[in-house]
Amino acid sequence: MQLKIKLLKWSAGLPVAMLNSKTAEKIGIHPQDIINIRTLSKHPREISAVIDIIKKRLVKKDEIAVSSELKKRLGLKVGEKVEVSMLIPPNSMNFIKKKFQNKSLSRKEIDAIIRDIVNNSLSDAEIALFVSSLDKYGMTMDETIYLIKAIQKTGAQLKFRNKFIADKHSIGGIPGNRTTPIVVSICAAAGLIMPKNSSRAITSAAGTADVIETIARVEFSIKELKKIIKKTNAFMIWGGAVGMVPADSKIIKIEKSLKIDPEAQLVASIMSKKLAVDSKYIIIDIPYGKGAKVDRKKALRLKRKFEYLGRYFKRKIKCVLTDGSQPIGSGIGPVLELEDIIKILNPKEKGPQDLEKKSLLLAGKLFEMTGKAKNGQGIKMAEEVLYSGKAFEKFKEIIKAQDGNLKKLKKAGFTRDIRAKKSGKIISIGNKKINSLARTAGCPLDKSAGIYLHVHVGDKVKKGSTIITIHAETLQRLNHAARYHKKINPIKIK
Amino acid sequence: MQLKIKLLKWSAGLPVAMLNSKTAEKIGIHPQDIINIRTLSKHPREISAVIDIIKKRLVKKDEIAVSSELKKRLGLKVGEKVEVSMLIPPNSMNFIKKKFQNKSLSRKEIDAIIRDIVNNSLSDAEIALFVSSLDKYGMTMDETIYLIKAIQKTGAQLKFRNKFIADKHSIGGIPGNRTTPIVVSICAAAGLIMPKNSSRAITSAAGTADVIETIARVEFSIKELKKIIKKTNAFMIWGGAVGMVPADSKIIKIEKSLKIDPEAQLVASIMSKKLAVDSKYIIIDIPYGKGAKVDRKKALRLKRKFEYLGRYFKRKIKCVLTDGSQPIGSGIGPVLELEDIIKILNPKEKGPQDLEKKSLLLAGKLFEMTGKAKNGQGIKMAEEVLYSGKAFEKFKEIIKAQDGNLKKLKKAGFTRDIRAKKSGKIISIGNKKINSLARTAGCPLDKSAGIYLHVHVGDKVKKGSTIITIHAETLQRLNHAARYHKKINPIKIK
Repeated sequence: MQLKIKLLKWSAGLPVAMLNSKTAEKIGIHPQDIINIRTLSKHPREISAVIDIIKKRLVKKDEIAVSSELKKRLGLKVGEKVEVSMLIPPNSMNFIKKKFQNKSLSRKEIDAIIRDIVNNSLSDAEIALFVSSLDKYGMTMDETIYLIKAIQKTGAQLKFRNKFIADKHSIGGIPGNRTTPIVVSICAAAGLIMPKNSSRAITSAAGTADVIETIARVEFSIKELKKIIKKTNAFMIWGGAVGMVPADSKIIKIEKSLKIDPEAQLVASIMSKKLAVDSKYIIIDIPYGKGAKVDRKKALRLKRKFEYLGRYFKRKIKCVLTDGSQPIGSGIGPVLELEDIIKILNPKEKGPQDLEKKSLLLAGKLFEMTGKAKNGQGIKMAEEVLYSGKAFEKFKEIIKAQDGNLKKLKKAGFTRDIRAKKSGKIISIGNKKINSLARTAGCPLDKSAGIYLHVHVGDKVKKGSTIITIHAETLQRLNHAARYHKKINPIKIK
Repeated sequence: MQLKIKLLKWSAGLPVAMLNSKTAEKIGIHPQDIINIRTLSKHPREISAVIDIIKKRLVKKDEIAVSSELKKRLGLKVGEKVEVSMLIPPNSMNFIKKKFQNKSLSRKEIDAIIRDIVNNSLSDAEIALFVSSLDKYGMTMDETIYLIKAIQKTGAQLKFRNKFIADKHSIGGIPGNRTTPIVVSICAAAGLIMPKNSSRAITSAAGTADVIETIARVEFSIKELKKIIKKTNAFMIWGGAVGMVPADSKIIKIEKSLKIDPEAQLVASIMSKKLAVDSKYIIIDIPYGKGAKVDRKKALRLKRKFEYLGRYFKRKIKCVLTDGSQPIGSGIGPVLELEDIIKILNPKEKGPQDLEKKSLLLAGKLFEMTGKAKNGQGIKMAEEVLYSGKAFEKFKEIIKAQDGNLKKLKKAGFTRDIRAKKSGKIISIGNKKINSLARTAGCPLDKSAGIYLHVHVGDKVKKGSTIITIHAETLQRLNHAARYHKKINPIKIK
């Protein structure tokens, strides 16, 4: 049945469509049924969507109202006609059940699951079963490779004619660990090509894309991206906008809501992102320790896996095991993290030393891997580029190429200091608690919200001194976060 | 923040609320955030709901639009003010994670999970993790008992002053196995009290409540239910309307979408429903075999569990193991099943023999358990009640008490015959395939939709003879089901 697109400026956070009850009755669709929507263009795009039904005239009989997410996914225009039909239940659910029963999956089966995730034909609960089965039973190396290829092939692909395409990635989990903009600026200033396909935060306080978005655009077409790279050697964008690895984004969303992070998916997620921008040299940051995603044993296993995959996909991959037992830097949240970054990049200012040191380490490794520096000389080269101000110039250049401006940075309207309840030494700062506290304050959507950490583990504090400042864009969120802080108490003093 | 309730006659299939973007911004809420909605009455009711955000004036700044499901759950009125606040993430997710790590849960932990499921504070993905963990690791008998009590205590409770409160239940999974209305009519005609709290279908073609709803009301207040029992000894209603075991309904919804059915939850689901209507004598039908929910070994284990729980909760429970290798009866779908039932109940007609025989067996067992008949004489007594027409009279009496009328039965407007592709013997009829085929035709919401089975396993057929008739309420659904039939081919001929 053909229906006309109506836009309600309706943001449901996911692809949902709404039909008039008469239309729904005519097609025989019930609420929560899943339908298939196909464009009538020469190369039709299609997607599945959950149906809401409305009795009011808001949506007319020949119309289908779509959420803004759905509009974006299919590039729909108001009044455009689409073909709407019922969805035959997908086969891939049987393959998910197979994994749930601890059986290995074939390439075809993994392809089907990933395709249906991208098409929106599998529900959150169904994806949750897939993810929890991966966590429980893991994947063989063969399955992991199928997964990487399946994720990559359902997404967009960038190609550059340059042998120095380099990339860095962190397995994540550490608040404030925003080395990317610093590493990218240092490396690109020294001639490496850094097409950084970054993520937005899902349950962390911010992703690199959220941070850059505080002062610049992060969504571009493939054509625009190629132009930016040509001009500046680098970009820091949100890959989701050009449809890079869409399967990965959806899986991550569910993983985070379940707070599980299966190793096979973590590896596939990183590898598919790197392959999508055709990176040749990849440095992977694996923070480990108490409160991190992995302990030392798992960190070493991950390292071996990435190195194996590097050989398989013919990429040069190096892993660095780093301290992940507490947050890095001071600011946590898009704007607060960017402030730290600018302080480090700007030779006239001084930023958090832990973040600076780690960024220099990663940039240095990349210089050594690519042959820009001799072994053992990488960090020194990185320091030169950073302290000379060249990295800061490069950063401003990239921001400008992404239609941005450092002056766009805006601070939060509401702040509240949290004070130490007793004198003593900071013995722990919970990564997960700090992340959820920052989110409770409104991160990552409220860009200037977040928390500023005045202390690190090992610091001595006096009773009544400020240990955290909460930043929020509304008073309600500020109060909400302050209440939540009381409940979780993320910083332990002894 | 206080907001006014607006109704959009908007049916999302689940509790969802919509805010104007300005209001959302003011409170600091983002799409897909979960909020808490509390009524301002003396005994406030509360629930969590996922938030959609709309920019149009459809929802004004001081309003919150709620889906019809949400309105019903809280009994909201247009213009009524409610308190809307952000939800602090619930603790129960940690307990679900504990089960996922194969650890036993305490009574308090199970209570918290069930409470948050009922309050809508856990997402589908989170409930999916709970359900899949139950399936994987099972529950101890202690945990199962906590689960039963938690489900029961978050729901409504019925009490009757009568010692002959009897009940029957099937573990389900067999299409057409609609013995309940027949058993209830026979038993109530002979003086047993049968308060049948039935379910609606989730992924099966019909639940007893769907079947009865084709000709009568199935949603009543507790007060009305007590009146009906007094008048007729029985009712067949949908327990969801009075809030019986709401946790169970939500868990079942997720289970069905994942096609997993953990034993602990199956047991808890049945037991909590029986306790909610205070049944003293319970007969449980456990169909087993190929295509059924359980094999013989699991059926025997279930039997032992139910018998143990019967002793624990001081109820007389008997389990009957029955053949579950193919559908029972001919009609599958609310109206089609009701037609079979009426043919069996009406002494002047002849219905499917397999369904009749099974109903007599179950009713007979209940007569023996309650002492209405001597051991070995139950079936004979059931036959007498059925063949005399007394059961049919009782059925009509119950339907009338539930404001119904047999004349309300309406057939589907569209049918299509599926013919045998070759001559031979029917060697299998897939229960699951038949169920999904009936649902594809529109069941259970399209009451007259479904399928009519012309054959059973062992029957001989000639090429071209009709084996299935698909019934649908729209031509689109009919075509959709016919296409689906081709894909799954549920009946095998050899």
